[in-house]
Amino acid sequence: MQNSHVTLDANEAVARTAYACSEVIAIYPITPSSSMGELSDQWASEKKPNLWGTIPKVVEMQSEAGAAGAVHGALQGGALCTTFTASQGLLLMIPNMYKIAGELTPTVFHIAARSIAAQGLSIFGDHQDVMACRQTGWAMLCSGSVQEAADFALIAHAATLEARIPFLHFFDGFRTSHEVARIELPTVEQTRAMIDDERVHAHRTRALSPDHPVIRGTAQNPDVYFQGRETVNPYYFACPHLVQQAFDRFGQLTNRTYRLFDYYGAPDADRVIVMMGSACGATEEAIDALRRTGQKIGLLKVRLYRPFDVSAFAAALPTTVRRLAVLDRTKEPGSIAEPLYLDILAALHESGRSGVTVVGGRYGLSSKEFTPAMARAVFENLSAAQPRHHFTIGIRDDVTHTSLDYDAGFSTEDPGTVRAVFFGLGADGTVGANKNSIKIIGEEAGLNAQGYFVYDSKKSGSVTTSHLRFGPNPIRSTYLITQANFVACHQFSFLDRFDMLHLAGPGATFLLNSLYGPDEVWARLPRPVQESIIAKKLNFYVIDALKVAAAHGMGGRINTVMQTCFFAISQVLPRDEAIAQIKKSIEKTYAKRGRTVVEKNWAAVDGTLQNLHRVSVPASAMTSDGLCPSVSIPAGNGEVPFSLRPPVPADAPEFVRRVTSLMIVGQGNGKRCISGA
Amino acid sequence: MQNSHVTLDANEAVARTAYACSEVIAIYPITPSSSMGELSDQWASEKKPNLWGTIPKVVEMQSEAGAAGAVHGALQGGALCTTFTASQGLLLMIPNMYKIAGELTPTVFHIAARSIAAQGLSIFGDHQDVMACRQTGWAMLCSGSVQEAADFALIAHAATLEARIPFLHFFDGFRTSHEVARIELPTVEQTRAMIDDERVHAHRTRALSPDHPVIRGTAQNPDVYFQGRETVNPYYFACPHLVQQAFDRFGQLTNRTYRLFDYYGAPDADRVIVMMGSACGATEEAIDALRRTGQKIGLLKVRLYRPFDVSAFAAALPTTVRRLAVLDRTKEPGSIAEPLYLDILAALHESGRSGVTVVGGRYGLSSKEFTPAMARAVFENLSAAQPRHHFTIGIRDDVTHTSLDYDAGFSTEDPGTVRAVFFGLGADGTVGANKNSIKIIGEEAGLNAQGYFVYDSKKSGSVTTSHLRFGPNPIRSTYLITQANFVACHQFSFLDRFDMLHLAGPGATFLLNSLYGPDEVWARLPRPVQESIIAKKLNFYVIDALKVAAAHGMGGRINTVMQTCFFAISQVLPRDEAIAQIKKSIEKTYAKRGRTVVEKNWAAVDGTLQNLHRVSVPASAMTSDGLCPSVSIPAGNGEVPFSLRPPVPADAPEFVRRVTSLMIVGQGNGKRCISGA
Repeated sequence: MQNSHVTLDANEAVARTAYACSEVIAIYPITPSSSMGELSDQWASEKKPNLWGTIPKVVEMQSEAGAAGAVHGALQGGALCTTFTASQGLLLMIPNMYKIAGELTPTVFHIAARSIAAQGLSIFGDHQDVMACRQTGWAMLCSGSVQEAADFALIAHAATLEARIPFLHFFDGFRTSHEVARIELPTVEQTRAMIDDERVHAHRTRALSPDHPVIRGTAQNPDVYFQGRETVNPYYFACPHLVQQAFDRFGQLTNRTYRLFDYYGAPDADRVIVMMGSACGATEEAIDALRRTGQKIGLLKVRLYRPFDVSAFAAALPTTVRRLAVLDRTKEPGSIAEPLYLDILAALHESGRSGVTVVGGRYGLSSKEFTPAMARAVFENLSAAQPRHHFTIGIRDDVTHTSLDYDAGFSTEDPGTVRAVFFGLGADGTVGANKNSIKIIGEEAGLNAQGYFVYDSKKSGSVTTSHLRFGPNPIRSTYLITQANFVACHQFSFLDRFDMLHLAGPGATFLLNSLYGPDEVWARLPRPVQESIIAKKLNFYVIDALKVAAAHGMGGRINTVMQTCFFAISQVLPRDEAIAQIKKSIEKTYAKRGRTVVEKNWAAVDGTLQNLHRVSVPASAMTSDGLCPSVSIPAGNGEVPFSLRPPVPADAPEFVRRVTSLMIVGQGNGKRCISGA
Repeated sequence: MQNSHVTLDANEAVARTAYACSEVIAIYPITPSSSMGELSDQWASEKKPNLWGTIPKVVEMQSEAGAAGAVHGALQGGALCTTFTASQGLLLMIPNMYKIAGELTPTVFHIAARSIAAQGLSIFGDHQDVMACRQTGWAMLCSGSVQEAADFALIAHAATLEARIPFLHFFDGFRTSHEVARIELPTVEQTRAMIDDERVHAHRTRALSPDHPVIRGTAQNPDVYFQGRETVNPYYFACPHLVQQAFDRFGQLTNRTYRLFDYYGAPDADRVIVMMGSACGATEEAIDALRRTGQKIGLLKVRLYRPFDVSAFAAALPTTVRRLAVLDRTKEPGSIAEPLYLDILAALHESGRSGVTVVGGRYGLSSKEFTPAMARAVFENLSAAQPRHHFTIGIRDDVTHTSLDYDAGFSTEDPGTVRAVFFGLGADGTVGANKNSIKIIGEEAGLNAQGYFVYDSKKSGSVTTSHLRFGPNPIRSTYLITQANFVACHQFSFLDRFDMLHLAGPGATFLLNSLYGPDEVWARLPRPVQESIIAKKLNFYVIDALKVAAAHGMGGRINTVMQTCFFAISQVLPRDEAIAQIKKSIEKTYAKRGRTVVEKNWAAVDGTLQNLHRVSVPASAMTSDGLCPSVSIPAGNGEVPFSLRPPVPADAPEFVRRVTSLMIVGQGNGKRCISGA
């Protein structure tokens, strides 16, 4: 069984199925969906065949509008088609989407759901883009994890052929699209079993062709347009059932079962959250923790958002529910409330479920964190005599006071799961090395594994933080690590720029890439770093990674060195097994470049182990000034809570001191400002 | 007072205010909004100044996406901007709309709301396009008549400056955009009084400028995007109140008062329809008629759809209401129901109005008729023990059986209103002449006047039907005439192609442009036309318009001749007054081309009167065959209900015989198929 697992991100998992099920793939790159198109393009150039043994035609258009138009045209020619996009790219597809749906044409667009540029542009994830398409007549299927994205990609390609309704398959940009996880990928055989050749044939016979001429896509006048628009009704009535059939067939093939609405929690819950997407993972963790204290709570996960099946919704919701919180990962200013809330109200109304108090809230815009602590606050709000309505969660809204308070200290992290955080420079190889570590641990050692990488939109040259979890139990923690067992700093210069040790849990291991050896380094540390190491009783290690890399002919590339250190001291695997695995991985990677290269890398691993030193930590921080310029920042700067190197001059304008400076030092989330934190 | 009235269509009324209030107008033509841009372009080329004495810069871009981008840019430069669009054009503006709203920038886009191309393209009117923008953060203000469009255009330009929220001002494509009506146009003084110069100044000071540099439109990361997105809340909370203030100020200036939600009907209504747009006129007529029979019913008209003010909605809705029908002029396949319905459900929920049964229905897609008879059917549905839900009205849905039956014979036409229908060839001058007649009657004679023109999308060369109403009472009949006092056929060849006399009421006048004189014409008529004339006791007139036109040097242009006939026999004005007015109008139109031209046209009027003949109608239709090829169509064709010239061969495929042929003869609406008709 172990070998059927792979570790990859949702974009790659989705692209594999989309590629296998398509003949024409029209693409245009937009973050965070780009890698789906890039991989497809690469595979086509490598002549990788699809399910039918042909090589998909991958064509990059001039914009997403062109990609949608190319797909529309190819579909009318009888080809199986797909595309990938997000955000403004998806908005440009809307005109063609109406036509594709109006003409009852099967296709799947895979969306790494992303914010829309409003007061500012953002490349990060939420549901604003897909919600802007909910009126187009497309089915909308939402994945909440990498595994689900892998599975629902196939469900969507199978169901669209059955239903003749085009599908938007979406998942949270970055949180899911870029999360690397250990999953089971549908096999070629399973994919083949899901795609009904008769339906493929039916699609082909509907193609426009001079051999059997029909007219389609005409101009219609008031006499017939309305009637024509209503003729699609039977297809929408039938669609949810066909999706459930696809889920069921898939369940028989894979043992992974899904329903249109999946309920998680107490069968006799009185309070329930309704939501969709990656935040369901965090909510499930909160539910498990709170149910252990006797709370009757649950989560209703929306899988098929469109067509919305009211009876399936009502059947999935426990009859005992008295209070419901509907959480939308979008914002629609000027609306009474956000779309999922409006739909759930209507679903309750239409299924005769009166007597349920319903409140709506917004969360997670632009990849803002949603944690079990926030889910708990939402459940607590439902317990209030007068639950707050139209709330936000995850920010502190001190302008219109919409936000719920939450206790950021509430943690549901599995003690059996290793949590590691790495601070690297953008494009310095840290992320690549971490992905390789996940592969080793997930695919070779058979542990569950998760990697999430916090880029900022400045990309190359800025800080990239890797959040890795490993363990024997399934990992549902769809949020950043705040209490790590292991913190690595790959760049010494970060020490007085970011308060990275606030992420270290008590007794954690701290690995520092340092020019200074174990005897010298302590005096070079900023005083707050010294204080954290002492207070948290951290196991402190240093390595001069640059020196080791250079000594083994790797120039400035420190990633293998740092990865070896991680395996050597993190205890995620037994040390000997870990080192064996890393050498095996090196062999696999470099075999084609000859034995010498493999052995040079092996030597680097051995050299790393010899140069990795534990630092003996003194009982108290140093008091001497001047060793590190940041140790004694004048208090005048004042606005940055952690006494780091002042990111802005003390005489900067107030906004820059109070807001910009916090963003620069990585405190823009205001984690430390939220009550209870 | 009389002189403050003008007769024009909504597009022109709106364009006048938009032009007066703008400095940059970026345009791209799309039906049915094009004339707003065309007029602006023309006025700018004529150096017509705006409110501040400058000439707006009107620039045609490469697409609607470019127009929206140009507006966005000009707004950031501090200019007052507008644009006009519809349908797919509006969809292309969505990405910029998010940014304009996100940056809290005042502007107004005027939308002649139109269908979106789905199973077929359509140039006609419904709310699919504006509803596709309801999530963008724009205010949405809906006009239901030409007068309201004239007024709300100004309200929108005034309110956007107060609110800093951009406005979509929309009205029904064709039904309102192209309806010519006698209205009061806001004067320059009123416009000036509505636009607050301080707000204009505030907009200018927010411009991006090197003189006071600020940064705007940045890229934001997860740390701050969500918070930034929420900072707009106070503006949305305040907006409805600011719109009501603008309504109130406008009411003081003009005596035309509006509210965010306007209620019409019984103060103690138990059944109410909620809707927006032009169909409100037809519904008001139905309410008046049905209240006379003791029914307690009403209409809640939505003016400001976004931001949706729940408390204003609740305050406007009588407390006695037990059953509500929400009518949406859009369709969103896969949604539980359409957007206005979802919003009204939420508004009731949030205002604690439980115990109200709410059903939703769709109507009027792509300018499908909505008549008082249909409004009555909706009220009747609300009286049923189990009201139908998710219904359609206005079509007969024999596929999924969503449609409500209605009694097409139910008429609320005002007996004091003259109703005239003209059949002309597209671009033959009939529409222009009718617009001129409306001007004479509305502006000179001081009667209320309405003109609606049924084009088909084939434009030039196809039949254009003009529906004109005139009378002393206000005209709210936002639907086609089905019982005319006057029917004119400007092309003899139409007689055996369309059943035009089914629109003639008993005792109506029928004017025919005929090569054949009064003694000869009868025998040339298709037998069904003869039968209709006899059965309905029509007053039948003929004129050889081509001969008269040629005799007075007007070549083939028959419009002045036919217009004179209309005034001479329709009794809309006393005959002598009518002829005097038409001559006055000729003088006005042709004065600049010299006295000779004026007198030649006057002579044509006199010549027309001499050549206009009443036909004495025999007691029975002729039975002789062969005079007209269509009189004796073999019954084999069978599918066309009126025995006209067969539009398709008898051996055509079944679909062509049953569907296409009905569309060709103008029966595609299936008027005669709907129960009760």
